[in-house]
Order: sequence, then C-alpha cells, then structure tokens
Amino acid sequence: MAAPTVALLMGSKSDMEKVAPAEEIFAEMGVKVIKEVISAHRQPEKLREFVRSAPSEGVEVFIAAAGKAAHLPGVVASMTTLPVIGVPISSRDLGGLDALLSIVQMPRGVPVAAVAIDGAANAALLACAMLALKYEAVASALEEFRRRMSEG
Amino acid sequence: MAAPTVALLMGSKSDMEKVAPAEEIFAEMGVKVIKEVISAHRQPEKLREFVRSAPSEGVEVFIAAAGKAAHLPGVVASMTTLPVIGVPISSRDLGGLDALLSIVQMPRGVPVAAVAIDGAANAALLACAMLALKYEAVASALEEFRRRMSEG
Amino acid sequence: MAAPTVALLMGSKSDMEKVAPAEEIFAEMGVKVIKEVISAHRQPEKLREFVRSAPSEGVEVFIAAAGKAAHLPGVVASMTTLPVIGVPISSRDLGGLDALLSIVQMPRGVPVAAVAIDGAANAALLACAMLALKYEAVASALEEFRRRMSEG
Amino acid sequence: MAAPTVALLMGSKSDMEKVAPAEEIFAEMGVKVIKEVISAHRQPEKLREFVRSAPSEGVEVFIAAAGKAAHLPGVVASMTTLPVIGVPISSRDLGGLDALLSIVQMPRGVPVAAVAIDGAANAALLACAMLALKYEAVASALEEFRRRMSEG
Amino acid sequence: MAAPTVALLMGSKSDMEKVAPAEEIFAEMGVKVIKEVISAHRQPEKLREFVRSAPSEGVEVFIAAAGKAAHLPGVVASMTTLPVIGVPISSRDLGGLDALLSIVQMPRGVPVAAVAIDGAANAALLACAMLALKYEAVASALEEFRRRMSEG
Amino acid sequence: MAAPTVALLMGSKSDMEKVAPAEEIFAEMGVKVIKEVISAHRQPEKLREFVRSAPSEGVEVFIAAAGKAAHLPGVVASMTTLPVIGVPISSRDLGGLDALLSIVQMPRGVPVAAVAIDGAANAALLACAMLALKYEAVASALEEFRRRMSEG
Amino acid sequence: MAAPTVALLMGSKSDMEKVAPAEEIFAEMGVKVIKEVISAHRQPEKLREFVRSAPSEGVEVFIAAAGKAAHLPGVVASMTTLPVIGVPISSRDLGGLDALLSIVQMPRGVPVAAVAIDGAANAALLACAMLALKYEAVASALEEFRRRMSEG
Amino acid sequence: MAAPTVALLMGSKSDMEKVAPAEEIFAEMGVKVIKEVISAHRQPEKLREFVRSAPSEGVEVFIAAAGKAAHLPGVVASMTTLPVIGVPISSRDLGGLDALLSIVQMPRGVPVAAVAIDGAANAALLACAMLALKYEAVASALEEFRRRMSEG
Repeated sequence: MAAPTVALLMGSKSDMEKVAPAEEIFAEMGVKVIKEVISAHRQPEKLREFVRSAPSEGVEVFIAAAGKAAHLPGVVASMTTLPVIGVPISSRDLGGLDALLSIVQMPRGVPVAAVAIDGAANAALLACAMLALKYEAVASALEEFRRRMSEG
Repeated sequence: MAAPTVALLMGSKSDMEKVAPAEEIFAEMGVKVIKEVISAHRQPEKLREFVRSAPSEGVEVFIAAAGKAAHLPGVVASMTTLPVIGVPISSRDLGGLDALLSIVQMPRGVPVAAVAIDGAANAALLACAMLALKYEAVASALEEFRRRMSEG
Repeated sequence: MAAPTVALLMGSKSDMEKVAPAEEIFAEMGVKVIKEVISAHRQPEKLREFVRSAPSEGVEVFIAAAGKAAHLPGVVASMTTLPVIGVPISSRDLGGLDALLSIVQMPRGVPVAAVAIDGAANAALLACAMLALKYEAVASALEEFRRRMSEG
Repeated sequence: MAAPTVALLMGSKSDMEKVAPAEEIFAEMGVKVIKEVISAHRQPEKLREFVRSAPSEGVEVFIAAAGKAAHLPGVVASMTTLPVIGVPISSRDLGGLDALLSIVQMPRGVPVAAVAIDGAANAALLACAMLALKYEAVASALEEFRRRMSEG
Repeated sequence: MAAPTVALLMGSKSDMEKVAPAEEIFAEMGVKVIKEVISAHRQPEKLREFVRSAPSEGVEVFIAAAGKAAHLPGVVASMTTLPVIGVPISSRDLGGLDALLSIVQMPRGVPVAAVAIDGAANAALLACAMLALKYEAVASALEEFRRRMSEG
Repeated sequence: MAAPTVALLMGSKSDMEKVAPAEEIFAEMGVKVIKEVISAHRQPEKLREFVRSAPSEGVEVFIAAAGKAAHLPGVVASMTTLPVIGVPISSRDLGGLDALLSIVQMPRGVPVAAVAIDGAANAALLACAMLALKYEAVASALEEFRRRMSEG
Repeated sequence: MAAPTVALLMGSKSDMEKVAPAEEIFAEMGVKVIKEVISAHRQPEKLREFVRSAPSEGVEVFIAAAGKAAHLPGVVASMTTLPVIGVPISSRDLGGLDALLSIVQMPRGVPVAAVAIDGAANAALLACAMLALKYEAVASALEEFRRRMSEG
Repeated sequence: MAAPTVALLMGSKSDMEKVAPAEEIFAEMGVKVIKEVISAHRQPEKLREFVRSAPSEGVEVFIAAAGKAAHLPGVVASMTTLPVIGVPISSRDLGGLDALLSIVQMPRGVPVAAVAIDGAANAALLACAMLALKYEAVASALEEFRRRMSEG
C-alpha cells in the first residue's frame, strides 16, 4: 500500500509561513504532502489540472489555505468528491472573518470542512483523522499524538 | 452594430426573484439579456463552457448574483477579462454579509465589481454605465433614466 | 464488512428539523446513522459515555449540530480521535455567528470540521467523503450524487 | 472557618499574563487562589478530575479564562453547580469576539458569568462579590476597594 | 434566617416577557424576587434610591435586563458592591449584540456578570449559584435541578 | 454675556490624548472648556455632583468620551437636559465598536449625539455648531473654519 | 422672535413611518418642522438647493434619516455649518449597521450627530436640546418632558 | 482617438500610498490618469466642479478611494452617469468595514462598483475592463496582463 498522501494548496506565496505547521504535523504522522501555490482566480486552469491529476498522485485529501475572498477551497471542492479542508488565512483589515465566511458558507451539495482562522495545524490533524479511517499507521500516530498532548 | 448584450447569471433558482429588477432595467435600456442559473460549485464545467462561449453570443458584461459563500462572480471573473459585476444575495442567517465579503474581497489581479446586497437593479445600471462608454443609445437611455429619477 | 456508520448528535430537540437533511443524504448513500439528542452542558456524563462507546457500535465519523455557545462538537472532539463535523445552528438573535465561531475556532490539537450555518446536508456529504476513502460503495454513491447534481 | 478559595483556570500557558491582574486582586482581598493551566479540549480528563476534586480543596467559585472557541468555562460549568466566571481572552484575528460569544451564549440550564474581554481583574472582583455574601472579611475588603476607587 | 432575596430589574415594561423565565426559576428554588421596571436613563434618581434601599429589603444579588445601550446593569453595579448579573435583551436591528457589548465590556473595577442574550433563566440560575454559597436550601435545590436536567 | 462654555469629560486618564484635538478646536473657536476625568462606574457620586453643578459654571454642552462599555455619555444625559455629545474611544480588542454601540443606541427619551470613533475634534465642532445657535462669535468662527477647510 | 424651526429630511418615502415619532415630539415641544423627502444620490441638486435656502426659512437644525449607505446626513453637513443630526434607518439585511457606520464615521471637520438606529424620537429630542440653548420655551418644554418621563 | 482617461480621486492625502498600485496598473495599460485629492465633505463645491468638468478632460471612468464614512464614491456617482468605482480604505478601528458598507450599500438608482478594502489595483483593472469595451489597446493589454499572471 502506498503512503497516505494529501495535497496542500495555498492561494498565495505569502501564505507559506501560515501553512508550515501543517507540514510539521504530516511529517510526524508519516503522511506525504504535495504542496503547491495556485491561485483559484489568477490560475484557474492550472488549478483545474492539478485537482484532476491529484488522485493519480495518490492524493486522498485536499487542504486549501486562502485569505480574503478565499474561494480556493470551494473551487477545489467543486472539482472533486475527495474531502476538502479549508484554512481561512487572517489579514489585517477584517482579521480573517471574510475568509472564514467565504470558506465555510458553501452551498448545499459541495461541502468544505472549515477549520479555525490560521488553523493549518488543525487542518493537518483533521486530514489525518480522515486518513486514519483507512490507514492504521495514521490512526496509531494520531492516538499517540493525542495521548502526549493530554499530558500537557 | 449588434444590440448590447449582458449575461445575467445566478447561482440558484431561488435567486430568480432577486434578479428580476435587473431585467426590468435592461428592458428599459434596450440591452439584451442572456439569463442562466448555473452553480459555480455544483456545475463548474457548465459554468466554464458558458463563460467561454459568451463572447461569441455578444456578451460584453457579466452580472452574477449569489448568496452565502457566493463564489460565482469571482469564478466567472477568473475565466474572462470582461467586466464582472457581483450581486450579494441576502439570507436569513447572516443577512448577506457573508456573500458581500466573498464577492468584494477578491485578490489582486482579478476584480469583481460589487453592488449592494440584493442590489440587482444597481448591477444592471452599472452594466449600462459600462456599455454606455461604447453604445450611445445606452448612454442616452441612462441619462434619461437619471433625469427622470432626479425629478423624484 | 459492516455498514459504514456515523453518529449524528444534536444539542437540543429543537435542532431535529435542522438535521433532517443529513439523514436523507445518509439514507441515499447507504450509511447507517445513530442519532441522539445530548446536551454537552446539561448531560456531560451521558455524552462522555456515548462518545466512548460509539466505536464499538461501528461509528467512524461524528456529526454534532448545536446553536449559540455550541460547544457540543468541540467537546466530542476532545474525547475521540475520529473525525468530528460541526454544524452551527442559526438562532434569531445573532443568526448563528456565535455558533459558527464557537465551532470553528478550535484550539491547536483538537480540530472540528465546520460546515455552513444550518448546513446539515453538507455535513452528511462531508462525512460520506471521509467514509468514501474506505468504503467503495460510498465513493460510488457520492460520485453519482455529484454527477446528477451537475446536471442541474 | 477556612480561607475563601477560588480556582483560577486558563486554557493555555499563554493566558498567564492576562490572568495576572486577577491574582493581584485576590491577594489584596485575602482570597486563596488555586491556579491551573488545563485545556478543555486537549486534557478533558484532567479537567474533569480537577473540577470534581476542587470542592474538597475548598473551592467555592471558578474563574476560567480562554481564547478563540473558549469552551473552558462552559465545560467547567457543565461539571459543577458552583458559580463559574468566564474571561474571554483576545486574539489578533477576531479581537476576542469569538471567545466572548462562546463564553456568554450558554444554553438554558448551565450559566457562565461572562466578564469583559481580557477582564481578569473584574472576574476576580466578581468572584469576591460572590464570596462576600458569605465571608464578611471579603465584603469589607471589597467595600474598602470600591471606596478608594471612588476617590480616583 | 430570612428567605434569600434577589432584585430583578428591567429597563422597560416590554422586557417583562423576556424576564419571566427567571421568575419561574426563582419560584422553583425558593428565592424571593423583588421585581421592578426602572429605566437607568429616564429614571436615574428612582434607580439610585432603589439600589440604595435594596439591602435593607434583604436583596443580596441584582439581576438587570436591558436592551440596546443597556446601561442598567452597569449603573446598578456602580452603586453597589453586591453581585450584579446583566441580561442583554435582543432587538430586531442588531439582534442584541449592542446590549451584550454594553453589558459585558465593563471597565476595570466595576464588574457585571453577563449571561446570554435573552438569557433570563440562566441569570436566575447564576444568582442561585451565588446564593447557594450561603443558603444550603438553595444549594440543594440547584443540585436537584441539575440532576433532573441531566436526565434529559 | 459670559464666554460660551462646554464640559469635556472622559472616563479614564488614558483617554486624555484622544480628546486633545477637541481642546484645540475650542481654543480656536473661543469656547471655554471645563475638563474632568470622571468614571461613570467608579465615581458615580462625583459624576452626579459634577453634572448637577455644571450649569452654574456656565456649561451649556457636555462632551463625554469613553471606551468599551462607554456608559459615561448616557449617564450624563440621564442627569441633564443639556445636549450631550458622546465620543467612542477605540480599544485594541473590538476597535471601538463596543463603545460606539453603547453610546449611540440610547433608549427613547434620553438622546446622546454620537460622533465617530476617536472623533473628539468633530465632537468639538458639533458642540460649536450648537453654541453657534446662540453665540454669534462662535457662528462666525465656525464659518471661517469651514471656509478655510474647503480651500484644502 | 419666530418659532424655532427644524428641517426633517429623509432619503426615501419608505422612511416616513420611521420618522413620524420625531414629528410628534416637535409638535409637543412647539417646534416647527419642514419635512422633505430628498435622496442625496438621486436628487443631489434638489438637496443642495434645499439646504442652501433652509436658513432663510428659519431652519436652525437639520435632521436627516437614511438607510443603507445613508449618505444624506453627511452630504447635508457638507453644505451647512448648522448642526446636523443623522438617524440610521434599519433594513432587513444588515439591521441598520451599515447606515449607522455611514452616518457616524464622518471625517474630521464635518460632524454629524448620530442617534440610535430608527431613533427618530431621540433625534427630535436632541434637536430640542440644541434649540433650548436659545429658546426658553423649548428648554421649559424639554424639562417638563423629562420630568414626566422620570415619573414612569 | 484620444488616450483612454480615468479620474482617480481620494478623500485625503493620507490615502495617496493606498492608491499608488492603481497608478502603476494604469501606466502599464496605457491609460491616462487625472489624480486629485478632494474631500466630499470638506470641499463639496470643489468636488462638484471637478466631476462636472471631468468629461471635457476625456474622463470616462471615475475611481474614488475613501475611508471611514467614505461618501466620496457615492457623491461622485450622484453627479454623473459615468461608471464610478469605489475603493474602501482600511483604518485601525473597524478595519475598513465602515468604508466598505458606506461604499457598497448604495440605494437603487445610483450604483457604485465596490472593490476590496485597499483594493486600488483591482479598481484600476476593473476600470481597464470597462475601457476595454471601447479601446482595443486596453483590451489587448488586459489580456496580456491576465496571461502573464496565469503563469504565476
């Protein structure tokens, strides 16, 4: 069985620092990450090709981080039935409330799983919880992570 | 010269009543309307084909009305360099603030022109103001409309 | 292999109507639902026992719907490493913004997957997307659902 | 009669500086403080044991400070009938509005007494006002505090 | 020992229906209620006299319900060191967010214990939790209430 | 005729810098200012005496600046029929929205004139516009101010 | 001396019912009202002429009620140094928060006195408080009004 | 044919830095810019003259940037039937939400095209999209801009 794999997308290079905590979690959990910077609005065709070809790379879960109008997670979700997790990125003006609402208020039929503003670490943990349904190694790693955390 | 033409998109059949005032304005201004219900999330391919073929139908301006996450105007804007006007549709929970922020907070490079919540009539007038740059008949109709309005 | 199973929790009997769309989705997807009304605050011990015994009933994903302070999804998430989806329920005063923020702004380490305000149908579809990683029948049903939806 | 005693909980070590003003008030009022950092989500069992054993340590009032989803005060309140005071801790993104709503919008049956965002000093004064119902020394200290304050 | 007594104030006759649940709770808990409609702004002298004479009537806790600017709880708190609980009353325009912020954001030195918007029942339960520190009968009644509630 | 006189109150010494622009305007307009720091909550009796004796000092307009719960302007207004102008002072958490709502949402019968967040200069100009109804020198100074301003 | 006079403007005929309480107050106080429906945006020239000629009609204070973008009070204020009171009118989508912010957040140099959302009665009382600086009859009527109100 | 020309207005000199990105876009697109600092409130007559004479300078689109009450775009729109684009400028207190709502919530009949908070670059691109309906050189430049952007 191949390594469990996620795609970690962000709408702008400036989001790189905000998604780094997700990469740390995935490294710890033994999950492979395919990371890309693609703007849903500036590069719609590149995004479409990426999402379409992702399953052939083994991707089973998408994480998409974006700020402001933050359409990236929703656009990804419109192109796949794999689970999509959206991370609202904060900005100075509205503090990320705009990104949060754009990500979470998806219409009936095409869900996105929203996590906290700047919550990339939790997005990774949520992806692991999904993968753990199928991959026992991830399930074990997640339980170990939770156990250590409960010790404070 | 062909009649000036706009595309009037909405994300859901339930928005039909909310966009009706735009149709009235266009009828009064002599602007042809191509109206379609297409969900950006549920029907991404249908939307892509519509936007791509619209110029060949004479479309010069897009109006897109949507509620909640309201990605429709932004997704249209990612596929065309024609002007795109977004109409946030109100809903009972957050009153349309979600749709407004999702529509107006577009990232640098791909603008959407946002009008008021449930402001379809103004979206039509804004589209006419754009078309009036090119079509004198629309310019005249718009000035006449404004003149009558100023009489109260 | 047993039928894929989810737990569908709500904090109050008055949320019953709001979660009904989730049940319809699960019925369509062939997913078994264990439905319970348990208040995180009024019945903390009952909740604890339910969450602890759920895996032995085959539960692999939790959905928790709650309004106002809406701690239910987060409290469930604190007791399990299975994926937890939170549905903010709207109320008349703040329209569900309180429930949304309480559900989505979880601290690092314990994620909840938030969906739209009153978005029970999407919570069910998201749960199916997770189960589809493991259950091919759910994956097929989900793809069929999406295909029909794209036809409008 | 033993010294009046309060439990001062916070969800994260980073809240330590924000609750310090409460400790100063309690020192001035002659109230004993049992201070602990316990996350409601990462350490639910540790929290449960703390709340259950607190009365045997003489605790009569709980103060719980937390940011973001801020479930700590509500979870404490679900486990005790002693009064629970919640202090919303501000964060950079939403300024503490999320924590305030999560703390104050508790469902019928299980109240939390919310004070201002970052209002740990007032939480302590409120706890003293409660204890003053029973302990005359606290009542006198509180009146003296108010008298001095009124002199500016 | 006299019966435990609370003052239940509201800023306007129109709040009467919203505070009724508090009266039911107090009846159940054996707590005497002195109920008055006094506007902090329209009747400042009447309010001042009421608060000053309340202790001589046995009042040990104040509950004040008010909407919009909702200064009533804070003004009461400025005149007494007894605990003051504030109940934000919702209104159609801002849903009670104005009242909530006016009540909860009190300055250092003069706390008000805020409960949920329209949360009069919880205000009563919180008052009982305070009185229970001193009155064993209230403590027993409160525990019995909680026990019954946990049975659902 | 005595010099036109205003009272300039603030709830905390920390507001001093924020109200300084009002003093500059009054100096320019020839209006006498009686400035005081009085907390509505910590010093209610001092405030009451100040407001009661202010008319005998020639005060014809009150300006009150306050942050957070910001009851000061409303409490002053409850004690006088002279015009009261409220200046919401910003704070880091909610940016002054709390103070704005607390000041502006006064109940029927007791108005406060709210100006912009941190808008002390405009409060002074508004006070001058009121005084200008009676004092021609202030009217002239105000017109001159406006004329110069219009020159940019 | 002529009767004290105010101008009562509203942006739309639909605001008529909302400003009626102001007319009742003025009738009671013996203040003459010149009432007009003029849109700042649809009828800028009509508005300009009205504001310019108002002083010759004896107008000493302006009240302007408007909803949504609610520029009316600010535009009036830009054209006169007389005091301008703004009444934000609520609407279904954002509850009047948009109108409130548009009215109150005026830039330095041109103040508007904002009252509560739908607070036309208080706008009238505030106008009377201004006129009372000059007209003793209004001052007496206002004091009598306040006295009766304090009797509940 | 003369060069395509836009007017770029801002309400305050302090907005200069925020509109600079628009100037860069216009330079790149070959669009002439007439830039002015005019306050809608402090200089209403100067604004009126500017807007009236702009068409004779070749102006076909207006961009107006303003913060706080942000009436500038709406006031310009009330004086012309040419398209008006509004740029909400952020401020420290409410992050630009006030400016956004003041600009976008225009009443029926007089539209303003709102772009993102501090979104001057997008305002320029939107203006170019309008001009591109008439000027082929602008259309080509815009398509080239979009093509380069899609390459990342």
